[in-house]
Amino acid sequence: MHHDEWIRNEFKAMAESLGFRFTPQKEIAYRLTKVRALMKKSTMEGLLVLKKMNYFYLTGTTQDGLLYVPLEGKPLLMVKREFERARVESPLDTIEALNTANTLYSLIKKHYGDFPDTVGLELDVLPVRDFQRYRKDYPSVNFLDASKIFREVRKIKSPFEIELMRTAGRIAKEVYEEARRVLKEGMTEIELGGLLDAAAKRRGHEGLLRVKSFNYEAYSWHILSGETGGIVSQSDSPMGGLGLSPAFPVGASRKVVRASEPILLDYGICYHGYQADQTRMYSIGRVPRKFIDAYRACKEIHDAILQDVRPGADTEALFLKTLPLAEKLGYQGSYLGPPGLQTRFIGHGIGLELNELPFLAKGHSYPLEEGMVFAVEPKIVFPGEGAVGLENTVRVTSNGYEILTPTDQEIIEV
Amino acid sequence: MHHDEWIRNEFKAMAESLGFRFTPQKEIAYRLTKVRALMKKSTMEGLLVLKKMNYFYLTGTTQDGLLYVPLEGKPLLMVKREFERARVESPLDTIEALNTANTLYSLIKKHYGDFPDTVGLELDVLPVRDFQRYRKDYPSVNFLDASKIFREVRKIKSPFEIELMRTAGRIAKEVYEEARRVLKEGMTEIELGGLLDAAAKRRGHEGLLRVKSFNYEAYSWHILSGETGGIVSQSDSPMGGLGLSPAFPVGASRKVVRASEPILLDYGICYHGYQADQTRMYSIGRVPRKFIDAYRACKEIHDAILQDVRPGADTEALFLKTLPLAEKLGYQGSYLGPPGLQTRFIGHGIGLELNELPFLAKGHSYPLEEGMVFAVEPKIVFPGEGAVGLENTVRVTSNGYEILTPTDQEIIEV
Repeated sequence: MHHDEWIRNEFKAMAESLGFRFTPQKEIAYRLTKVRALMKKSTMEGLLVLKKMNYFYLTGTTQDGLLYVPLEGKPLLMVKREFERARVESPLDTIEALNTANTLYSLIKKHYGDFPDTVGLELDVLPVRDFQRYRKDYPSVNFLDASKIFREVRKIKSPFEIELMRTAGRIAKEVYEEARRVLKEGMTEIELGGLLDAAAKRRGHEGLLRVKSFNYEAYSWHILSGETGGIVSQSDSPMGGLGLSPAFPVGASRKVVRASEPILLDYGICYHGYQADQTRMYSIGRVPRKFIDAYRACKEIHDAILQDVRPGADTEALFLKTLPLAEKLGYQGSYLGPPGLQTRFIGHGIGLELNELPFLAKGHSYPLEEGMVFAVEPKIVFPGEGAVGLENTVRVTSNGYEILTPTDQEIIEV
Repeated sequence: MHHDEWIRNEFKAMAESLGFRFTPQKEIAYRLTKVRALMKKSTMEGLLVLKKMNYFYLTGTTQDGLLYVPLEGKPLLMVKREFERARVESPLDTIEALNTANTLYSLIKKHYGDFPDTVGLELDVLPVRDFQRYRKDYPSVNFLDASKIFREVRKIKSPFEIELMRTAGRIAKEVYEEARRVLKEGMTEIELGGLLDAAAKRRGHEGLLRVKSFNYEAYSWHILSGETGGIVSQSDSPMGGLGLSPAFPVGASRKVVRASEPILLDYGICYHGYQADQTRMYSIGRVPRKFIDAYRACKEIHDAILQDVRPGADTEALFLKTLPLAEKLGYQGSYLGPPGLQTRFIGHGIGLELNELPFLAKGHSYPLEEGMVFAVEPKIVFPGEGAVGLENTVRVTSNGYEILTPTDQEIIEV
């Protein structure tokens, strides 16, 4: 059979029967309207969307290509590989194959008559060499930075996006229930991590987490036990863990999980690109009082933040209010990391990436808005001993919040 | 206990007892010599190394920071987080904390007296906005593209690197043996993928694969069965598979694995940053003759390439010789993909990333050299039906080759 015909005739039904949810046309139209409202505030006549998650956000596909969004008129999706599949996956109706015969320039000329004078590009992620090529190919075009447009637009989640994140949260709950069943004294952290990967993937977890960063690599298996919980690493996290090698020095390690030590499970789920982040504590038998008390403090801080979560609440204030509370509870030297290594955020926006707006952080002062989603994660670290923490993914509603990660919040003793 | 003290006193022994292998000082010195030899061919006075895998290559750590390599004198490792851990992980002897008090500028002035006039940067990966910041902070500095230096230097693997890749190949062998045990009719592709993740990770697989690309994301679980083997996707691969959603439309899917269909397992391993790539065929019961014949053709093409692998062999010629052979065997319309979608390479260099030099590909003509390592992967695709293929990771020796992925090459029938 011919590949293109098979994709045209068989692909959609097969994919849907195997769990694919395609982004509806209305959803894409809504997102485009929001992007264009911000484009209008600049002198941008058109926007070239290159980065995978922005491209997915506006097209519904991640097939290799690029999207051109003119200020008015239909957007143009240009696909390198695989064209037929992009036509099934994306609800956009102007889709062209991009190749040596149909170049970016010729396709834009064909559809819009002229190449625009002022074009937005994602300069926060686009590599210099690619940018230099655009400048060489289009010497008269004025390229502007469009990074902020995506940051702004993506910070408010639609009901369609929330539903995918709710599903991610439900998968997380099932994975944490599986952890209760498979966690055994004597297994290694990474062994547990692998078993959770297996439990998560067969429920739809896509394996990768995503973060917008030049160098940082996100991962699901942040599982720390006893003293590995007290180790800081490259990541902007209160504790990084040991990891498997100097090349991957974060997350689960080959350390054996022992009885009576705090076991921190921070395992993120990605479902249809949308992520849910969650941390819970486990133990084999009872952990010393010290860790139970510290966990209760995390829970108290977590609840104190949520109490104030509603549209209009100031993001920096939410972070700052936790500092005297942690101090009052006796954890100023261990809250959010060891002295000198403490992180300065208590929450990070989450969606297609793990570091979206809003940040509940020092230096990030703006009001929460309905439809924002963030992970809130108070953690307490004792070097040489262990760490405890609690994390939930939370949506801002019209008058409060909804927790998207419904796993029970007590320490889980097996 | 204080975190820094714990790292200084306890970390190294703990990490080594849990499988960490640190890069020896001699190895780093050898790599630096190679880098400097290429720097000398340009006007570069210094090189700023930012990208994680280049930075790891020259420092032995992936703690967040940057490395400055002057043309002569000691390189300077500047670490944002976590400083004490970088001091344990890296054998370099000049390591400074990078922060608001100790800036890049002040540290370079302190150690070298002056900031250099001409500095190399990795412009193939550095985002435009970061580059603009460097240009603003250092208006008189001439920044040159250092991308080629890393591409060239990293293409020849040292005995230390080869040993890590051999270990990755051995882990792959064990994972494929585990696949023989766990593969069952009625399980989904992604279920199998998750079980292999569990098997791989507890043996030291780091979970992520790496590829130098602005948009492409590498992954281990490329498991395709029956008709999903016939689906092309975003990746430059003969077959992409279905995947789990439009956001991750490659690799294992929720399709149930059935008896008598070809099951292609392309599961890569990453050990201490170094990767081994391998493909083998499985089946539950016997597959139809058509697939067995096609697999034999892949094996014949694979062996024909290896027969010519030695220093001096031309990389493009190795690719081109397979085209008439595939045609002679009757697969010109299915070799390396469906018509119109065929890939133009039969091998890709591999090491810290999956797309290193050399490429055995159309348009890539240069001689193989001793110490190069590449994955060779003839594959044959039948849309709507399935795919077959064989892949090994191969090192070029002084007079031939060594296969680093020693798994048996027959179709594995369970």
